[in-house]
Amino acid sequence: MGSLYLAILHYPVYDLQRKIVPTTVTTLDVHDTARIARTYGIAKVFIVTPLQSQHALVQRLLTHWREGAGARLKPTRKEALETIDLSYELPDVVRRVTDREGSRPRTVATHANRLGREMTAGACRVLLQKDDRPMLLLFGTGCGLARSVVDETDFSLEPIEGPTEWNHLPVRAAVAIMVDRLLGRQEEGTDESGNHYAAR
Amino acid sequence: MGSLYLAILHYPVYDLQRKIVPTTVTTLDVHDTARIARTYGIAKVFIVTPLQSQHALVQRLLTHWREGAGARLKPTRKEALETIDLSYELPDVVRRVTDREGSRPRTVATHANRLGREMTAGACRVLLQKDDRPMLLLFGTGCGLARSVVDETDFSLEPIEGPTEWNHLPVRAAVAIMVDRLLGRQEEGTDESGNHYAAR
Repeated sequence: MGSLYLAILHYPVYDLQRKIVPTTVTTLDVHDTARIARTYGIAKVFIVTPLQSQHALVQRLLTHWREGAGARLKPTRKEALETIDLSYELPDVVRRVTDREGSRPRTVATHANRLGREMTAGACRVLLQKDDRPMLLLFGTGCGLARSVVDETDFSLEPIEGPTEWNHLPVRAAVAIMVDRLLGRQEEGTDESGNHYAAR
Repeated sequence: MGSLYLAILHYPVYDLQRKIVPTTVTTLDVHDTARIARTYGIAKVFIVTPLQSQHALVQRLLTHWREGAGARLKPTRKEALETIDLSYELPDVVRRVTDREGSRPRTVATHANRLGREMTAGACRVLLQKDDRPMLLLFGTGCGLARSVVDETDFSLEPIEGPTEWNHLPVRAAVAIMVDRLLGRQEEGTDESGNHYAAR
């Protein structure tokens, strides 16, 4: 089984007018993705932003919780935040994962809309399990990953869709759901009435 | 298929010392659970707290986004927050769901630890689908639902577990994952190598 890595991209992403912009880091997203990552054994979460001021903000948060008063107050949060790393741009993330793993990760875009070259979460789960090649799952902030990023990935994941057309999940919820679909414990069985079910 | 309802309980829940306390409402949890609820077609999310000051806080948030400047700025957020309701205590929530649905909901506790009388998410999904009886899924804030609440529910759901013992997910991530397990689109198939997979 390959290791799973996440990258939360703050650039290049769309704003509401579909302009490509850098978004600011939501510090709570750093905490939430770290806690999800720690629960599911994700290798590393990269917060990706070209802005030096945002690196300083995240670094301050990390120092507080990993070495400062936060680490003494809440050791479990320290453990979670050990999974976080910072990067200025996606190619750097790919390089660092490649160096660490000895092979280039499969890159997978996620998006709230259908982008083409989509794989279901179930098929992606199988792909992750079938060999030792790492996988890097990309999440866009703002109004989603820029097309230029999506076009350079190996494939995209089917969007998370409910029974309605409404698709405005927070990125931290999308991370939770996608990671559970890829790494959550698999369960199959038969209910009292003899119906087969498969779920996690 | 029965309608799914959520209740986010701020009392009675445990604090870090396992004392039973009321927790404060995290306004972001209200936004996140509303957005998850709207995506998956959840009937209603009840924010449950006995504190009048907390009702006033949530009411102010709801008025801003449902009727005030927020509604004009972000119509999708208005749509999401329409799913939110307030209650002072769990028995009131059960009564209101019963009045709305014409039958008493099955009550289901969630927890980060194993509580006994546990059902897997897959079995719970089947139960929700098999008839029209509504289901009310309870989430505790702080360090989880008090034992007195759990003991009065019809059953509990298996905790969300990864490959490690670490179990400190934010409640908003737990809501996202559980709702996806219960209502997310089911997928089954066979991969290129002929392996069967089942996933959502």
